[in-house]
Order: sequence, then C-alpha cells, then structure tokens
Amino acid sequence: MKLLQDRIIKEGTILPGDIVKVDSFLNHQIDPILLRELGKELTIRFANQGVTMILTIEASGIAIALMTGLELNVPVVFAKKVKSSNISSTFYSTTVYSYTKNIEYGIYVSKDYLSKNDRVLIIDDFLATGHAVLGLINIVRQSYAGLVGVGIAIEKGFQGGGKLLREQGIRVESLANIKALQNGQIIFNN
Amino acid sequence: MKLLQDRIIKEGTILPGDIVKVDSFLNHQIDPILLRELGKELTIRFANQGVTMILTIEASGIAIALMTGLELNVPVVFAKKVKSSNISSTFYSTTVYSYTKNIEYGIYVSKDYLSKNDRVLIIDDFLATGHAVLGLINIVRQSYAGLVGVGIAIEKGFQGGGKLLREQGIRVESLANIKALQNGQIIFNN
Repeated sequence: MKLLQDRIIKEGTILPGDIVKVDSFLNHQIDPILLRELGKELTIRFANQGVTMILTIEASGIAIALMTGLELNVPVVFAKKVKSSNISSTFYSTTVYSYTKNIEYGIYVSKDYLSKNDRVLIIDDFLATGHAVLGLINIVRQSYAGLVGVGIAIEKGFQGGGKLLREQGIRVESLANIKALQNGQIIFNN
Repeated sequence: MKLLQDRIIKEGTILPGDIVKVDSFLNHQIDPILLRELGKELTIRFANQGVTMILTIEASGIAIALMTGLELNVPVVFAKKVKSSNISSTFYSTTVYSYTKNIEYGIYVSKDYLSKNDRVLIIDDFLATGHAVLGLINIVRQSYAGLVGVGIAIEKGFQGGGKLLREQGIRVESLANIKALQNGQIIFNN
C-alpha cells in the first residue's frame, strides 16, 4: 500500500536491533485519517469472508483493529496483557515472547467474547518474528473458532514471522512488507 | 448521552470495590459503531476550541480517543506505561496511582508530539478518582501547552475525580455520569 510505504519512508527511523520506529503515526502518536485508510484497505482484502470479529492485542494493535472493525461492522476484542480484577474469571490464555522488550508475558481473552461460532480476523500493527500473532492464533485454536486470516500494517518480512505463518497455510495480508534494512534505508518487498 | 447510558444499564456489571465493568463494549470487547458515536458527541462538545491534539493513555483510552481524533481531524497521542526501547529518549513523565489495580506506574509522552503550541483535549474511557487524568494534566503542564478540557466516556461521579477537576476550573465533559451504585443498580446523574 503506497500510502503507508510513503509514510514509513518519510517518518520511520531505524533503531539498533532492526527496530523500525514509527511513533509519529502508529505506535505513540496516531494519525486517525491514515489509520482509517489502513482499515479500509484491510476490509477490502478480507471482504466476503464472513468475519464475525477482530482479535488484536493491546496496546498498539487497538487503533488499526478498531478502524478495520468499523469498516467491517464487527466487534473488536483486544487481548489483555494483565489479568486485572476487571476481567472475566474464565478466559483463554497463553504466553508471548516480546522480541523488542526481551520479556515473556501472558495474554488473556475472556471466553465471553470468543467462541467456536466465530470467524476471526487477527489484526496487528507489526509482524516481525510472529510471536504475538502466534499467541493470538493459539487463543483462536483454544476457542475452536475459525481463523479467516491475519491483517498487518507493517510486516518485517526479513524477520521470518510472515513466512512461518504462510507455510502453515494461514492467509497473511500486510499493507507494507519490509524486505530489508540496508545502510539506513528501508527496502520494501513490493 | 442516552445511547451510552442505555448500553451501560444493559451490559454493565458491578464488581466489588465499586468497579463498573463494561468489558462487552469498551474495555475488552469494543463496539466500533458505538465508539464512533461517542467520538462524534465529544467532538460536538469541544467544537471550535482550536484543539490541535488529543492526549490519552494506553490501553482502554485509545479507542475513544481515536474516534474523537478522527472526527476532529487531529492526531492522537497515547501516553505509554512502559518506557520501551522504542520510545524517544526525551519525554515528559509522571507517576499515576491505579485505584482498580492498587499499583503505581509511570507514564511517558515523547516531547516530539506535545509542545507549548498545542491545545490539548484529554480523552479517557473512565473518570473515577481522577488519578490517570491528573497524570495527563501534569504532562500537559510540563509541556506548557494549553489544556482545552477533558472528555470522558463514563464518569463515576461518586468517586470525586470529576469534582476535583472542575473545582480547578478544568472543563470536564462526560457522556455518562454515574451518581451512585445502589443495590446492584447503576444510577445516573442526568
């Protein structure tokens, strides 16, 4: 998606550890108009698939998931990273390894909002090594819901998560796919 | 706002510690259509005030802030609770006490996205004792930006945060204001 690629090239910065920082429009400051366009594009790509709900993970995934849910007219559920007193007592859970933070954390989804009758579209801001999405897929499997696919704003193709998922037969649509980071340049796949 | 009050009455549950749980449309599962209506209403209430940006806090505040930002056509910045390697090295920060989780945590906003030239609208999902909003106001004060006001989905008026803010001359608009929780019933102010 050229709109997103152009924005990444204009405002993205590369940090040590192959981190692509896009805090100016996605991960800290959010551009609502851009996010709506991303949601519209993901809706086009997953149209007519009978999606009943969107599953994402707090916090950075919420914005793009919400905009996609708005277009698809389905509810959005965000997996929580802290099991607070506010959450339902029955939930699906698994652990996720964070590559950028080098920690493992639990994620939780109430059984009230995900069941075997659902057809789930997983949405997230980034796909790198794939740990977060694999955690969400694990939760979808626990619920016996159908998995329609995975929609991503920015895939870092060179970190292998997308390849791993596609090899499992999972449909992954990323709006920008970074092939490599070379000499401070961001090179896209398409 | 009747739409929101009706939804709270229909789906909200009261948990020990005067917690009003609305996980079915706001805090875990999100209803995008409802959230868009909340964003539109907050936009009407803060129209023509020269708002240049919205400030909220991860994670539950992001959805309503984003929908308000979409309507007002201004960027949304969410304060982070973890100072990750991804965040800018220069930031405003303060500590916030969480009533529901009984912990204190730091919040961080990059100086790249908030400056003295901004006119800030603070948006959050809940206003109870006011600690989170006071933390955000502290950060706005640090930046010398102007504070237009505070927009809230659900105020728990009986917990005093809104009163405290209004006594300081801060404009607070809440879309549903809970006066009391009595015998398992949620009673609204208006």
